[in-house]
Amino acid sequence: MILINGDRKQHIEVTDRGLQYGDGLFETIEVTDSTPVFLDLHLKRLQHGCQRLNITCPSLELLTSEARQVCQNTTHAVLKIIVTRGTGGRGYKPPEISNSTRILSLHPYPTYPTDFKLAGISAIFCKTRLGSNPALAGLKHLNRLEQILGRSEWNDESIQEGIMLDNQDYVIEGTMSNLFWIKDDQFFTPSLLQSGVCGIIRGIIMDQLSTRNSPVMTKRITQEELLSADEVFVCNSIIGIWPLTRLASTTFSIGPHTRQIQSWLQQLKTQG
Amino acid sequence: MILINGDRKQHIEVTDRGLQYGDGLFETIEVTDSTPVFLDLHLKRLQHGCQRLNITCPSLELLTSEARQVCQNTTHAVLKIIVTRGTGGRGYKPPEISNSTRILSLHPYPTYPTDFKLAGISAIFCKTRLGSNPALAGLKHLNRLEQILGRSEWNDESIQEGIMLDNQDYVIEGTMSNLFWIKDDQFFTPSLLQSGVCGIIRGIIMDQLSTRNSPVMTKRITQEELLSADEVFVCNSIIGIWPLTRLASTTFSIGPHTRQIQSWLQQLKTQG
Repeated sequence: MILINGDRKQHIEVTDRGLQYGDGLFETIEVTDSTPVFLDLHLKRLQHGCQRLNITCPSLELLTSEARQVCQNTTHAVLKIIVTRGTGGRGYKPPEISNSTRILSLHPYPTYPTDFKLAGISAIFCKTRLGSNPALAGLKHLNRLEQILGRSEWNDESIQEGIMLDNQDYVIEGTMSNLFWIKDDQFFTPSLLQSGVCGIIRGIIMDQLSTRNSPVMTKRITQEELLSADEVFVCNSIIGIWPLTRLASTTFSIGPHTRQIQSWLQQLKTQG
Repeated sequence: MILINGDRKQHIEVTDRGLQYGDGLFETIEVTDSTPVFLDLHLKRLQHGCQRLNITCPSLELLTSEARQVCQNTTHAVLKIIVTRGTGGRGYKPPEISNSTRILSLHPYPTYPTDFKLAGISAIFCKTRLGSNPALAGLKHLNRLEQILGRSEWNDESIQEGIMLDNQDYVIEGTMSNLFWIKDDQFFTPSLLQSGVCGIIRGIIMDQLSTRNSPVMTKRITQEELLSADEVFVCNSIIGIWPLTRLASTTFSIGPHTRQIQSWLQQLKTQG
């Protein structure tokens, strides 16, 4: 099912600024037993993104209600919410009053060939770099050509993720995931002040570790430093947490910290 | 009139990657007397952009034919051509075979309150920076949030353009235009290897000056250097060439070189 501004439709106007300029934001949410997981956190991020881009955010009550409508009678799926600035304005200049467009659509949950959560995955470093822009950093916006170019770099099905660097060769994130590493029992994740998406699962992991007196340090890190980590994992709202057992030509074992965080995340998900 | 893949329609599928990720390119073309001006150059740039993003480009014969169809019986207007990667793929990963979407739409020619070509315009420096990414630099792609944020910085109708810098504080271009400056009878324009759009009018101006033994030098330039220029102008396919008579708090006179280039461009346009 697709709901566009509350109506069951499949199409949007060509003049929508989401198509014309990528002028909008999105959320990708796991759905289990008709329930969008961590929906409140996703909607808060969407609202925050709208504030930063000065897009009128639909009311969170309305989005919650429509999300539940779209997800009813669903065992396991992916809910995507897109909010664009709508139509209007003159060229790049946004209209003074914008009627944003909201699109809620349900998609099959992706099937992965093996249990990547348990056995871990292999990743490469992408050649495509992420541009730096503090005005857009952190946002899950609709300008995703860098991720598309990064994800286009491999077709080998034994590779599940590509790790992207910025123009100064610092590690930022995966094409579709955030990145954590553990070194000497300390937890790290890249700083996202210049590039990258502040993921919901990333935020949950940082909160969990913080309340357990093991705060995650954000850091600028090179490829070499990452490859010297004890444990490395990637995460997002759909895949959960995938340990990295190989990155480029370096192998990692799946350590106790990664297993512990996977366990916490699973508990939080089942608590709703 | 709007033609989508050859049919008269107003809507596209929500699943189109143009909306989902800004996964596409566009051209904005002046139309005079039913003729899209410099159409061949625009289509060649579109084809080149498709090659760089690995998007299947519609045949140029087909695009030419549809452009003429959309523009018939038009005195003065703007033709916009969008080509997206179409639907499909898994997440960011493009489908192995993509059926691109082509959208041709006609828009009113924008009316400007005074004759900016003759009298010049005022511009500011934008605070929003352009990210650097050689993989995307030069392309007129659909990821335009930086330009939207730049253009959102002013509402003052006495300001007609905002000049954007990159993260290293080098001047790149206007929010909707390319930039040239003249100093001691030499012609300059910013290098677009890291950011910016390689405009059609920019290319024409560089060709014209080159054939007249006054090649344009591409250069990395700071705000201060730009403000010390003798003449400054911006250009694009819709506005033509607008001299800058004020940038931030610095004033410029409209010099003979700018007038000469305006004259050449006008001749080329009327020659078709």
